[in-house]
Amino acid sequence: MDINVLLFNDFEALDAFGPVEVLSISEKFALKYYSPEGGAVTSVQGMQVLTEPISAADKSGILLVPGGAGTRTLIHDEAFLAELRALADASKLCLSVCTGSVLLAKCGALDGKKATSNKQALEWVKTASDKVQWIDRARWVVDGKFYTASGVSAGMDMAMGFVSDYLGSGAAEETAEIIEYIWNDNPAEDPFAK
Amino acid sequence: MDINVLLFNDFEALDAFGPVEVLSISEKFALKYYSPEGGAVTSVQGMQVLTEPISAADKSGILLVPGGAGTRTLIHDEAFLAELRALADASKLCLSVCTGSVLLAKCGALDGKKATSNKQALEWVKTASDKVQWIDRARWVVDGKFYTASGVSAGMDMAMGFVSDYLGSGAAEETAEIIEYIWNDNPAEDPFAK
Repeated sequence: MDINVLLFNDFEALDAFGPVEVLSISEKFALKYYSPEGGAVTSVQGMQVLTEPISAADKSGILLVPGGAGTRTLIHDEAFLAELRALADASKLCLSVCTGSVLLAKCGALDGKKATSNKQALEWVKTASDKVQWIDRARWVVDGKFYTASGVSAGMDMAMGFVSDYLGSGAAEETAEIIEYIWNDNPAEDPFAK
Repeated sequence: MDINVLLFNDFEALDAFGPVEVLSISEKFALKYYSPEGGAVTSVQGMQVLTEPISAADKSGILLVPGGAGTRTLIHDEAFLAELRALADASKLCLSVCTGSVLLAKCGALDGKKATSNKQALEWVKTASDKVQWIDRARWVVDGKFYTASGVSAGMDMAMGFVSDYLGSGAAEETAEIIEYIWNDNPAEDPFAK
């Protein structure tokens, strides 16, 4: 099963690569890196990552959408949002971290769903859509095929939850052991909620 | 102050980009990405990152050495090890994550120092140098200018400790708040020690 990591300029590094690390432990997942146009994209942290154009992805895979400062621009990009909506609809499962959920909300993919986002940006996030049931206090939220995490580091806890849900608690424990990860495994425990 | 992130083929993504995320919050640090030869390097997780050749780095900065499967090759690369030794000697501070410490040990930079590494690989790590005082139970270890972390995720806790030591506990708290990181702040508490 492909994990389609959707990168863009000014993505937040750990939003993407925290879950990537967690998901890389199972041989069931193949990690692929895409961006709207393909080519090199630069994270907020200045690293340049090479990507394929998102049009080349197997859209039936699992979509991972990070957040970051780049979402402030993409939220106004109608062509991008239409492509994201089609991609989210076709994806078996959709994971977002931090302000990645603002993109899924703005394109309508989260209509009628519960979701969360970065706790410092949550008031801004809410302005993107009033059709989403935004959860103020949650490390991560699951609703149907959508997994949305709070800010940055919460994405790893969400990814661990995803592994546990889909591959079993034994796979989650093995992942934690291999990457020496102290999993904050209660999605309702959120020390960063306002 | 430059943070010189030394990447190589088959580095472990979170070893590098976990600490990168933590260190990116302070404006005091400028993150730079290098590799032995420069150009694109590929992580264990398949992402390709563009780098400058390490010869172009300001060697007086702070060195960050990730681990990963690539260390199994680099440990036999005499030219690389000589360059790493010179770089470590010139660096103001050296941080390593996971099996990054095996490279610092093999090149002699850690002679006489306390250090730790990935807990699943620790027996192999120890064969690289008997001049290092390897610590079996530690989330991270500080000895002089060297900060060495246990496996993968421990690098973020170490980086938080580094921020706290050098920029103050307020800066560490602010970092945790911004990236919603639940810091495991006791370096002696190591649930993954054998």
